[in-house]
Amino acid sequence: MGNMDTECPSSRVAIPPPQPFLKSLKYSLKETFFPDDPLRQFKNQPASKRLVLGLQYFFPIFKWGPQYTIKFLKSDIIAGITIASLAIPQGISYAKLANLPPILGLYSSFIPPLIYAMMGSSRDLAVGTVAVGSLLMASMLGREVNPKENPELFLHLAFTATFFAGFFQASLGLFRLGFIVDFLSHAAIVGFMGGAATVVCLQQLKAILGLQHFTHDADVVSVMRSVFTQTHQWRWESTVLGCCFISFLMVTRYFSKRQARLFWVSAMAPLTSVILGSLLVYFTHADKHGVQVIGELKKGLNPVSVRDLVFVSPYMTTAIKTGLITGVIALAEGIAVGRSFAMFKNYHIDGNKEMIAFGTMNMLGSFTSCYLTTGPFSRSAVNYNAGCKTAASNIVMAIAVMLTLLFLTPLFHYTPLVVLASIIVSAMLGLIDYEAAIHLWKIDKFDFLVCISAYMGVVFGSVEIGLVIAVVISVLRVLLFVARPRTFVLGNIPNSGVYRNVEQYPNANHVPGILILEIDAPIYFANASYLRERILRWIDEEEDKIKATGKTSLLYVIIDMTAVGNIDASGISMLEEVKKIIDRRGLQLVLVNPGSEVMKKLHKAKFIEEIGHKWIYLTVEEAVGACNFMLHTYKPNHTKDESEGWNNV
Amino acid sequence: MGNMDTECPSSRVAIPPPQPFLKSLKYSLKETFFPDDPLRQFKNQPASKRLVLGLQYFFPIFKWGPQYTIKFLKSDIIAGITIASLAIPQGISYAKLANLPPILGLYSSFIPPLIYAMMGSSRDLAVGTVAVGSLLMASMLGREVNPKENPELFLHLAFTATFFAGFFQASLGLFRLGFIVDFLSHAAIVGFMGGAATVVCLQQLKAILGLQHFTHDADVVSVMRSVFTQTHQWRWESTVLGCCFISFLMVTRYFSKRQARLFWVSAMAPLTSVILGSLLVYFTHADKHGVQVIGELKKGLNPVSVRDLVFVSPYMTTAIKTGLITGVIALAEGIAVGRSFAMFKNYHIDGNKEMIAFGTMNMLGSFTSCYLTTGPFSRSAVNYNAGCKTAASNIVMAIAVMLTLLFLTPLFHYTPLVVLASIIVSAMLGLIDYEAAIHLWKIDKFDFLVCISAYMGVVFGSVEIGLVIAVVISVLRVLLFVARPRTFVLGNIPNSGVYRNVEQYPNANHVPGILILEIDAPIYFANASYLRERILRWIDEEEDKIKATGKTSLLYVIIDMTAVGNIDASGISMLEEVKKIIDRRGLQLVLVNPGSEVMKKLHKAKFIEEIGHKWIYLTVEEAVGACNFMLHTYKPNHTKDESEGWNNV
Repeated sequence: MGNMDTECPSSRVAIPPPQPFLKSLKYSLKETFFPDDPLRQFKNQPASKRLVLGLQYFFPIFKWGPQYTIKFLKSDIIAGITIASLAIPQGISYAKLANLPPILGLYSSFIPPLIYAMMGSSRDLAVGTVAVGSLLMASMLGREVNPKENPELFLHLAFTATFFAGFFQASLGLFRLGFIVDFLSHAAIVGFMGGAATVVCLQQLKAILGLQHFTHDADVVSVMRSVFTQTHQWRWESTVLGCCFISFLMVTRYFSKRQARLFWVSAMAPLTSVILGSLLVYFTHADKHGVQVIGELKKGLNPVSVRDLVFVSPYMTTAIKTGLITGVIALAEGIAVGRSFAMFKNYHIDGNKEMIAFGTMNMLGSFTSCYLTTGPFSRSAVNYNAGCKTAASNIVMAIAVMLTLLFLTPLFHYTPLVVLASIIVSAMLGLIDYEAAIHLWKIDKFDFLVCISAYMGVVFGSVEIGLVIAVVISVLRVLLFVARPRTFVLGNIPNSGVYRNVEQYPNANHVPGILILEIDAPIYFANASYLRERILRWIDEEEDKIKATGKTSLLYVIIDMTAVGNIDASGISMLEEVKKIIDRRGLQLVLVNPGSEVMKKLHKAKFIEEIGHKWIYLTVEEAVGACNFMLHTYKPNHTKDESEGWNNV
Repeated sequence: MGNMDTECPSSRVAIPPPQPFLKSLKYSLKETFFPDDPLRQFKNQPASKRLVLGLQYFFPIFKWGPQYTIKFLKSDIIAGITIASLAIPQGISYAKLANLPPILGLYSSFIPPLIYAMMGSSRDLAVGTVAVGSLLMASMLGREVNPKENPELFLHLAFTATFFAGFFQASLGLFRLGFIVDFLSHAAIVGFMGGAATVVCLQQLKAILGLQHFTHDADVVSVMRSVFTQTHQWRWESTVLGCCFISFLMVTRYFSKRQARLFWVSAMAPLTSVILGSLLVYFTHADKHGVQVIGELKKGLNPVSVRDLVFVSPYMTTAIKTGLITGVIALAEGIAVGRSFAMFKNYHIDGNKEMIAFGTMNMLGSFTSCYLTTGPFSRSAVNYNAGCKTAASNIVMAIAVMLTLLFLTPLFHYTPLVVLASIIVSAMLGLIDYEAAIHLWKIDKFDFLVCISAYMGVVFGSVEIGLVIAVVISVLRVLLFVARPRTFVLGNIPNSGVYRNVEQYPNANHVPGILILEIDAPIYFANASYLRERILRWIDEEEDKIKATGKTSLLYVIIDMTAVGNIDASGISMLEEVKKIIDRRGLQLVLVNPGSEVMKKLHKAKFIEEIGHKWIYLTVEEAVGACNFMLHTYKPNHTKDESEGWNNV
């Protein structure tokens, strides 16, 4: 204290040199849309090289293709066959979940993986349909068209929705708006996925209990009512089969979890279940005794479906809405999965590029009888564990599915629906990530609130309601953070020139006669009034304390602006008001370390002239030193404009 | 550098003591909803005193009433009569603007001011109807009911909308949600008000040009089309009269602006215009020659209108929507006006309390044939300049209006509509605050964008569109701030232990081998991916620079967390990922000065154990000191997990 190098001119807070408007605009736009600087590699390259780089940018296969080795191929073939054995039964199951013909599940595991293999930058992602997307599509489209009464229109709407999903995905990527996906927080996704998994499991009660009629609503109340009003319709044959297969799948999953080397046990289990179930039905003729089977599956590759897209209202509006929501959800899942595996293997994934890949894959998919695909976690994890090296494992899977489509579809005729339901249930149970929810509760109560609200919204309302709740709460939290920033009183940490929050550092000492405040957020219109109230309340409380103890009266209010990242016009008015009120109460306002943005704006608004540049310091230590120097050397030259000033505010 | 007091245990970053969940929840709720601590005065008081204080809280008249003096009364009478002379012609004009019977303007200047005088805490606010609110009501209700074809239903809907406006206002106040109004930023209000004023002025062309038919749309395109397709209908008598009165009003306003003592000149001008205009029409019989007049005004006080409220759909939905929007707009204006005058006179206004007062005033108003009222700026400024002392000036105004209603209404029979239009135009021109817009452009381009978008939205779209645009852009800005926080490289300011942003302080020196970054916002789900990319890009750029110059290679990455106000689960995962990547590249991550919230969460998530408590420092100086010490003493113990680590990420 009394540290008098504060008069040294080098320690003045600098006003950054004025920048031309266009330059700063360009900088802001770059940071907003190109934070990862994707054009960096194009700099200082000849045109031909740029063309090659551009091609490699959009089609990474040209990058890894030339370096592909036989060793890679071996690994990719093993991984590809493994995921195909998972993809075939899962594809059929999820297509049933989406109220679409089961064959669509196989179609969707053929074309999209081929496209992703060329355009995707993840080495571990395995492409396919997902349960949540299927469910969402069924419920959103089902509100407009009944899939039982009008299956053809429903199918065409599904293609149209897939087309729009792809269109939105590609647009987000092209316009570098990938950060919109970031607004789905991790907590929201955990809750949302858990809720969707719960709902999907409940839906499977239909097949497991062998019911013929079932509610079209997905919420838990409707499903429970539907189940318990038809207790006389329950079929024990189905139920027993279902329980057996679920137990089988869960046990294999348990083994694979304990021994990573045994990943193939759980990967093969669904196909094994399908084979076992089909054989059982074929030999026992259980299909004649209430066990429903898939039935006829058309042989042959994907038919072209471009002409099936529906571009007439009112159906188009539904398709656009469905496409937008399912597209964003699918992106969120696919990109999160891609990023996690990229982190394990230490390579980089460009979110915006991935979006273009996903979008193209879905748009072309919708032309070839596929519905919404993305990179599901379960399948990608199997791919990763099976030792895939590049996206070529997707090509292997596609070929395996193609062979199935060409030759093996009749084999699925006797596959019982209850086996499909068991496969879905066992996959879904893994998505209910209660451990993550507990972790959230421990770390951050607000994140837990977001998570549980999303879960409850999905389970008791609908998938969309859960989604909206999660996004709204997450955004509200950000707004609330800005609307109600924290303010702290700082104290001096003994034997140092460091000033820190007295709540966090109980040993920090109060400086007599000086109130040091720290504001912890940008000063914006949303918090300007609050901060004014709060600063005045700190001063009031400080004066009350002084009155009670009878120590030195308050003379200086230092505001540490280190953490104030930005300020807007309302914020500057607020500071002007606070300065006036503080002046009137006979105190002196001192600012510490405003950042470059803040300093620039304070300068333009002439607030620096108003407060005096000498009352702006680089560090709290210097400001306190200067205040103490004034306090002990001169009588402070404060005026009290109005006699009532002290009590009246 | 090499400053070795870094080993001193006192300078460790403290982990704040764990707080019980309920206590921290209570603290957060208090800061969110009771930032001004309104219950402070109730503490340690006996029950009877508390009752009195509570009464005084809701009815401030009990606070200032007992101290009322004859001197105050004199001032208040002068101010009250002055504002009454403004209120009567303005009230009639604005009621015409709202497509309501003109007499409603007088009714609305009688009951609501009385209620506000009892419940309001501003000493300067003069209550009355406002142009923007009137216009908004006319346009929103007019979409449902045509005011010409069904005037009675329209009138009843206006009462209902006023009731709901009051209801929402009071609810916001009671539930301490006043901060919602803060989300209308100053810039948004400037643009919105300017746009509304422009639109209102254009609407007056109907009366000024003496047109019989006119568009119901308010946007500039429709109005211009309406005006220029009927050039043959223009009446020169009207136009000449209009121009004379507008000039007269503008000249008086100019005088009053230059000489604050002449405030009464502009305050009396509207009433003078009304009298002059009426006399002119009466003696020249101009009403027979195309100059339209007000006509019959019913004598007598406000009739009761409780039974006129419409609670049947579909009208109720419209009324609720209109009430919500007009109520919030009216609140924003009233509270901003109240606060500015309170600041001039150095007293305090409680926003939530004011909302309850406004709400009660509008609810009771809707029962007594009044429509939406608030505290208009122009009238309050006149009140202030006329030297009002307390809210009693509103009572004086109400009495003057009451006398007018009882005895003087017939005098307005011959008042030409063009005079009313002139009064509106001259009031509105003052609301187009182009100077504020220029100021915004100079200080903050983004605020200017908000302002001009709101203006354009109102002028070319509708009042609601402008409002929605302004709010959405303002909120997007807050979200964008959080989604794209600034990150800076810090350097050492010569001859000090201070580290600052090298862009702002070009003389700050880079520390060899150490990259010091500062993050300027809370780390949330919305920016976690961005920050990960950006931090890695900083490291890449730093390494490129080092490669180019061939200096000491990079070994430490210090992240200054001073400005990181909070972190959520996604943010912590991001830090974990960054740590892993940094480790893999053979660097060491060092954190500096995480705040209490951040420290608490990092502790709970076990990130502190992961990084090691010794790599978290209190100041950048200490962190740099420790790094340099390690750099010069030991060989750094970094491992490179993978040979490709450096280039591949």
